[in-house]
This record gives sequence, structure tokens and C-alpha cells, in this order.
Amino acid sequence: MSDHSQAPVTPVEAYEPPYCMAVFTAVRTPDQSGYSETNARMEDLVKDIPGYLGMDYAQTPGGLAITVGYFRDADALTQWQSDAEHRAAQRRGQAQWYQSYTLHVAKVERSHGFTRA
Amino acid sequence: MSDHSQAPVTPVEAYEPPYCMAVFTAVRTPDQSGYSETNARMEDLVKDIPGYLGMDYAQTPGGLAITVGYFRDADALTQWQSDAEHRAAQRRGQAQWYQSYTLHVAKVERSHGFTRA
Repeated sequence: MSDHSQAPVTPVEAYEPPYCMAVFTAVRTPDQSGYSETNARMEDLVKDIPGYLGMDYAQTPGGLAITVGYFRDADALTQWQSDAEHRAAQRRGQAQWYQSYTLHVAKVERSHGFTRA
Repeated sequence: MSDHSQAPVTPVEAYEPPYCMAVFTAVRTPDQSGYSETNARMEDLVKDIPGYLGMDYAQTPGGLAITVGYFRDADALTQWQSDAEHRAAQRRGQAQWYQSYTLHVAKVERSHGFTRA
């Protein structure tokens, strides 16, 4: 069973700046029990946040996992970060799922995309 | 042979904001000939840019690849984006290696890290 199995294999598009971006880079522990279920629930929940634009995810097997969330503005991201279920999941992540992580919250100033003809 | 095989499996740390972050999300084509060599060369070159802070990379097998580059300021990123060899590699990427990609350039406003005790 693969995590994030519903994610389409296309990058989130380049929205019109400015928009907000949260980059979460993580190394996981060996104990991933419950992760898939919680992650699926988070993917559902975040879609209800007004101003949520999308999410990119990649994980090198046995290596780094990177999640990038895109939001129309800082208020939308703040609403997501304040969500009670999300906060509970973060606490469980620190207690169980993550060996180490870094979160970078940023304002996107320019962007562009490319798709092969 | 794995790409990015020299990359340590720890996330780049949370630097003191503000700093600059470039997020490159890509789906690759089946034709990856020459990619590993060029990528290794780019990883060497970028280290010579004053203000380069580090890079995170993850790729889901058969899926999305995410590269995040961190720079002290916009000038450092501009210098990297202007590098002649880097620009040639980008052109080859569009011609051969990438099915689609998005680049998001952003200013990091806050960040934090976690490491398991």
C-alpha cells in the first residue's frame, strides 16, 4: 500500500503570485503505524480550507519526504495550521512518525510552469 | 545507480529568515540519458554560489520529483539562475528530461525544525 496513492502525477501549477507556500521536509522513523490513515484524513481536511490551492508530495524510498502545500494567502495557511485535528496529527508525528523535519513558510514572488507539447 | 546518491538523508535546517527558496516540482520523461551526470555537475556548481545554503531532494519512483534550493537572498538565487552551464542544463531539461515542471520562487518568512531526542 502506498501513501498518497490518490495524488495525481502532475506538479501543482504556477498560480499568480503572491501566494503562500509551506515546505515540509522530513525523515520518518521505522514506526509508521497509523500514518497512512491520518495522512488520508489530513488530505481530505485541507481541501475544506478556503484558499487552499493544492499540494505536491514526493518521497525517496528510505530517504527524504517533501510535502509542499500552496495557499492563496497567509490567512488560509494559518487556518490550516490552527485546525485541531491537524495539530493533533502534528503532535503524533513528533511522538511517533518523524525522526526529523524542517518547515519553511514562504511567500511566492514568482513562478512559472512548463509542459511538453 | 541512484541519482543524488551523495545527498545526506537529513532535511536542510531551518535558517534564520528571511531567506530565499526555489521549489522545483517535476515529472520526468522516460529518456533520462545524461541526467545523472548533468545533475551531479549542477550539485557541484551550485556550491560555489556565495549565499547558497543547501538543497533538499525527493523523488517518488515513477512519480513526482521535488527539489528545494535554499539561498541567503534573491541575489544568490539570481546568480545561480544566470549561470551559463545551469541555463544550458535547463534547456536540455526542457528538450529531453522533463514532461512537465513548475518553479516557485519565494521568500521564507518563518521556519522551524524538529529532531527526535
